[in-house]
Amino acid sequence: MEWLKTSIMHMRGVAHGSIGTTHELTEAKQGKYHFTIGPYTDPVLSIKPGDRVVVQTRDAFDGLVKTAQDLPSKVLKMPFVNPQNGPIMVEGAEKGDVLAVYIESMAPRGDNPRGTCAMIPQFGALSGTSLTALLSDSLPEIVRKIDVDEDGVYWSPRVTLPYRPHIGTLSCSPEIDSINTLTPDSHGGNMDLPDMGPGSITYLPVRIAGGRLFIGDAHACQGDGEVCGTAVEYPSTTTIHVDLIKGWALEWPRLENDKIVMAIGSARPLEDAARIAYKELVLWMEAEFGYDRWDAYMMLSQCGKVRLGNFVDPKYTVGAGIEKKYLG
Amino acid sequence: MEWLKTSIMHMRGVAHGSIGTTHELTEAKQGKYHFTIGPYTDPVLSIKPGDRVVVQTRDAFDGLVKTAQDLPSKVLKMPFVNPQNGPIMVEGAEKGDVLAVYIESMAPRGDNPRGTCAMIPQFGALSGTSLTALLSDSLPEIVRKIDVDEDGVYWSPRVTLPYRPHIGTLSCSPEIDSINTLTPDSHGGNMDLPDMGPGSITYLPVRIAGGRLFIGDAHACQGDGEVCGTAVEYPSTTTIHVDLIKGWALEWPRLENDKIVMAIGSARPLEDAARIAYKELVLWMEAEFGYDRWDAYMMLSQCGKVRLGNFVDPKYTVGAGIEKKYLG
Amino acid sequence: MEWLKTSIMHMRGVAHGSIGTTHELTEAKQGKYHFTIGPYTDPVLSIKPGDRVVVQTRDAFDGLVKTAQDLPSKVLKMPFVNPQNGPIMVEGAEKGDVLAVYIESMAPRGDNPRGTCAMIPQFGALSGTSLTALLSDSLPEIVRKIDVDEDGVYWSPRVTLPYRPHIGTLSCSPEIDSINTLTPDSHGGNMDLPDMGPGSITYLPVRIAGGRLFIGDAHACQGDGEVCGTAVEYPSTTTIHVDLIKGWALEWPRLENDKIVMAIGSARPLEDAARIAYKELVLWMEAEFGYDRWDAYMMLSQCGKVRLGNFVDPKYTVGAGIEKKYLG
Amino acid sequence: MEWLKTSIMHMRGVAHGSIGTTHELTEAKQGKYHFTIGPYTDPVLSIKPGDRVVVQTRDAFDGLVKTAQDLPSKVLKMPFVNPQNGPIMVEGAEKGDVLAVYIESMAPRGDNPRGTCAMIPQFGALSGTSLTALLSDSLPEIVRKIDVDEDGVYWSPRVTLPYRPHIGTLSCSPEIDSINTLTPDSHGGNMDLPDMGPGSITYLPVRIAGGRLFIGDAHACQGDGEVCGTAVEYPSTTTIHVDLIKGWALEWPRLENDKIVMAIGSARPLEDAARIAYKELVLWMEAEFGYDRWDAYMMLSQCGKVRLGNFVDPKYTVGAGIEKKYLG
Repeated sequence: MEWLKTSIMHMRGVAHGSIGTTHELTEAKQGKYHFTIGPYTDPVLSIKPGDRVVVQTRDAFDGLVKTAQDLPSKVLKMPFVNPQNGPIMVEGAEKGDVLAVYIESMAPRGDNPRGTCAMIPQFGALSGTSLTALLSDSLPEIVRKIDVDEDGVYWSPRVTLPYRPHIGTLSCSPEIDSINTLTPDSHGGNMDLPDMGPGSITYLPVRIAGGRLFIGDAHACQGDGEVCGTAVEYPSTTTIHVDLIKGWALEWPRLENDKIVMAIGSARPLEDAARIAYKELVLWMEAEFGYDRWDAYMMLSQCGKVRLGNFVDPKYTVGAGIEKKYLG
Repeated sequence: MEWLKTSIMHMRGVAHGSIGTTHELTEAKQGKYHFTIGPYTDPVLSIKPGDRVVVQTRDAFDGLVKTAQDLPSKVLKMPFVNPQNGPIMVEGAEKGDVLAVYIESMAPRGDNPRGTCAMIPQFGALSGTSLTALLSDSLPEIVRKIDVDEDGVYWSPRVTLPYRPHIGTLSCSPEIDSINTLTPDSHGGNMDLPDMGPGSITYLPVRIAGGRLFIGDAHACQGDGEVCGTAVEYPSTTTIHVDLIKGWALEWPRLENDKIVMAIGSARPLEDAARIAYKELVLWMEAEFGYDRWDAYMMLSQCGKVRLGNFVDPKYTVGAGIEKKYLG
Repeated sequence: MEWLKTSIMHMRGVAHGSIGTTHELTEAKQGKYHFTIGPYTDPVLSIKPGDRVVVQTRDAFDGLVKTAQDLPSKVLKMPFVNPQNGPIMVEGAEKGDVLAVYIESMAPRGDNPRGTCAMIPQFGALSGTSLTALLSDSLPEIVRKIDVDEDGVYWSPRVTLPYRPHIGTLSCSPEIDSINTLTPDSHGGNMDLPDMGPGSITYLPVRIAGGRLFIGDAHACQGDGEVCGTAVEYPSTTTIHVDLIKGWALEWPRLENDKIVMAIGSARPLEDAARIAYKELVLWMEAEFGYDRWDAYMMLSQCGKVRLGNFVDPKYTVGAGIEKKYLG
Repeated sequence: MEWLKTSIMHMRGVAHGSIGTTHELTEAKQGKYHFTIGPYTDPVLSIKPGDRVVVQTRDAFDGLVKTAQDLPSKVLKMPFVNPQNGPIMVEGAEKGDVLAVYIESMAPRGDNPRGTCAMIPQFGALSGTSLTALLSDSLPEIVRKIDVDEDGVYWSPRVTLPYRPHIGTLSCSPEIDSINTLTPDSHGGNMDLPDMGPGSITYLPVRIAGGRLFIGDAHACQGDGEVCGTAVEYPSTTTIHVDLIKGWALEWPRLENDKIVMAIGSARPLEDAARIAYKELVLWMEAEFGYDRWDAYMMLSQCGKVRLGNFVDPKYTVGAGIEKKYLG
């Protein structure tokens, strides 16, 4: 990963790319997983900038959907879904800083079929929901259990999908709110962005001392928008490397990989998520890449890249990116 | 208030309309006001169903905007706005119950000009905001200080508006989230609904033992939608009478006065708030007023009443109501 | 109607309130009704400013739903719904002018049950639709035939609703577009605004010579938002009085009655309709009623009135109003 | 283009991939360009299925923005923008059929700087607009003239963008509406979808005899969402090959290239455009590719591809696609 040497994480992080201690955040060490992201829970781990953490994430169903007969409406109890590891405290992190989270690897855990996808009543983009409230009947409730390994996602006899793992939920804590793990917002949270996989760095605004990093919700693969409401959810061993960038006050999360930089917005309606993402990207290009504001705005109209993360969560997530070759 | 005898509060409340102890929740007793609504704060008061509470609310600016020169961008520090009294614990309240909050009276407190209205940068319906994120300049930042008494709101030499007080923010606690006081949602919160004044009963879903009632954000008057982002915000002495209805599991708050019943939804985009409100009203008519579901739906298409509470908060609020004369 | 003497129509109209010739626009004279509103159709009538027209409107189902067994999915053929009378040419009307349409009276026509309300598949606010496209099944398809007279709308054995007639669709022609009669927009069209009944004046922007006035879609009553998708649709004899205001270039329709003035916006999402309406109202108060722009904006935040016309049509309609007593 | 032999166009089109006559639709032959797409204009050309047409398109500014000093607010007169070639009649096309439009090539026309990009007052995703109506000042009005050739788009001294031409506006006529050329809808229109370039086939629903094909609005390149409101607009020589598929009743346009098939939706809010696109894609997979409906829905949640065409036009456009390798 030669490009990492030129990443913002490496250039501006306190650890400057050096790797410190490796911590194991196993299920046992985590103990109680969390269903809100906020400042009111006890830390499970404290690390230094540059440290690596190997995290055992649970799937978004908290492991309760074991077979195709375990219907979510029977085995899940809202709002206790999408369990998170953390909070992880990062030494020296203060409001106005940024945590940089590089995802090194994501490996499946547990026995196959490890993967789960479900159509959940009153959830998903092509159904009435609790927010787009209709009098229509729900769609059928269907659970798919799916074999997953690092070579593929064995969707059906007809189709094998590539293994494209990413983290669905990643965030620091808000300053005073504690937000359920289904909802993305300016702190990060349940963004469900396929770009947030191995080889990516996510930049998260720190709003409270220590940052209080939460992580969970691994996806073995996911389409743009996560249209039925769930990805191929699975338990993972996710290895991250965390650094601290002092004095970088972000309003919203950002992401970098070898090819692009991306700003991320989460809101409803969907155009507002896209507006946030593009506005943040314009201001970023102006502040840090030597672009005039209007040149950036007009140029993104010619070369901006949009990723629809999800349009099924309580807020929708959009990433707006630009290829690094234009930032030079 | 003869109609109260036939209200749901009176008919189904544990106290059946009898008035118990009167509690004073002064500024001194409140001590620390709250900026999130959740389960993580210490109660200030415990009451029995039927008790009355006289609450000294602060204005939404926490009293920091004392003159027209105190610009919000200078004197406010986000997210520390819209301070709430509470939480008030109600004996016997459990998840699946409802708190009924009858507002007896709202009187202005403090010296004139007690009222404050402000245009706040990146806030309000006709400006770009943090969620409808644009590159446009903010509108001018303007503070109006306004004399308020129980005879009127002295807006300008040209215009005196009627004193039409109501509570902008009212809620029980969510089960595990702690939500900033600017955001309305299914727990209630910052609904900014002009109907929520003296003579109204609000029914709030209880999601955690004791209910944990929060109240604040008095408005001396407010137009539909609260278009510039703020009402005539003022400190008040608000007297409420609280009862407990056991085993009434609501998804969203509801409201009753002498003429109407109303269901309340908060969401973005605005049509989703209206959908929630109307769906809840249809289901309410079916469950409790002897209407067939489709008869209710079609009839509301002929006689439903909509109040736009706000379209400026992080979620927008709509009430959908029907005149009681049709409920028999 | 004493107040009419002080109306904008009377004060600024070419006819200054005097009544000219009365024209009969019967079904026979109309001949072919229209399903788009545009510049490409032959006029049925030419009138002078001040003239009165007695219009025989058809119901929005074009009279095809005669019994409860005439399901819309069987008897209607899209896009041939919501038939309009017109176009009526107004002498002297040019782009940049306004047609003022005062509704004098609306009387039911035809035999009872004259009124029709229907739940139409993939239509209505609490159903998936062609635009909010879902995989959910449609709601049941139901037709109600309803007796209507000037004393009431006989909804059911249990409920009689008041007769509150209004015109659902009213407009001049766009300049070059021809827009189906289901869609409201800046030309007017299918606004479904309950305020647009007898005693109201609607101001419509003229965009092409003669104005080309279209009218139809009478409702015997309608709730805010028209939630199930249809009002009590009925054939009417609607008497209007039309005047011409020269040199009043409006972007969107406006309305006046004895108590209020209102600006009207139609858009999706619903907040955009409300934004248009309030922006137009602020600018109107600034341009013609001596208000400073920001004073108007802040004051409407305290006393603005919102009517949700519909949130079921291809665009949603909102009216934002202010009581005339504040306009002096 | 070997893959064309397996395209739907080739397999099901009347011409089965054979190429007929080549027609020249020059500026001279076109004469009057069109600013609405509808059934009320005179055809410029009649062709047979399989014929090729070489079209001289004008840029979206109708050639009026010749220098950086030609501000749109001065030289453009709404609604006379985005001129279209056509209508082209296709022999045998009837309501319920589809026109397949394969884009063979797009070459720049005219002298450099041929390309134009502009920030137009009250237009663009990060500005208030006529529909998201605000009281904010407009962003600066800026025109960029850009050299364009088939090797690149010479954006600035710093940045050369790749030449990635596509057609912004493509459609058959609606049945009775005539829709301005700025607005996309179920007929096609101003979709601004970067995929609609050389090597793509667009399938357009025929709603009126002859189909009445309109084409225009070439873009030398465009980012996802067209965030500032305009692409690199330029005059082109666009060569298309048109076929007719009988008895394929589409609700919305679709697209195919060598790698994917895509369904296209246009609506507001943006999530509704995405819903339409994904719903159409699910139903397509069920109807023509042997998928169970719910299998398709759940699988697209894992591998669906979304393109944000624009979120600046009067309706927003989204394409939802799937790689052909999964369709077998």
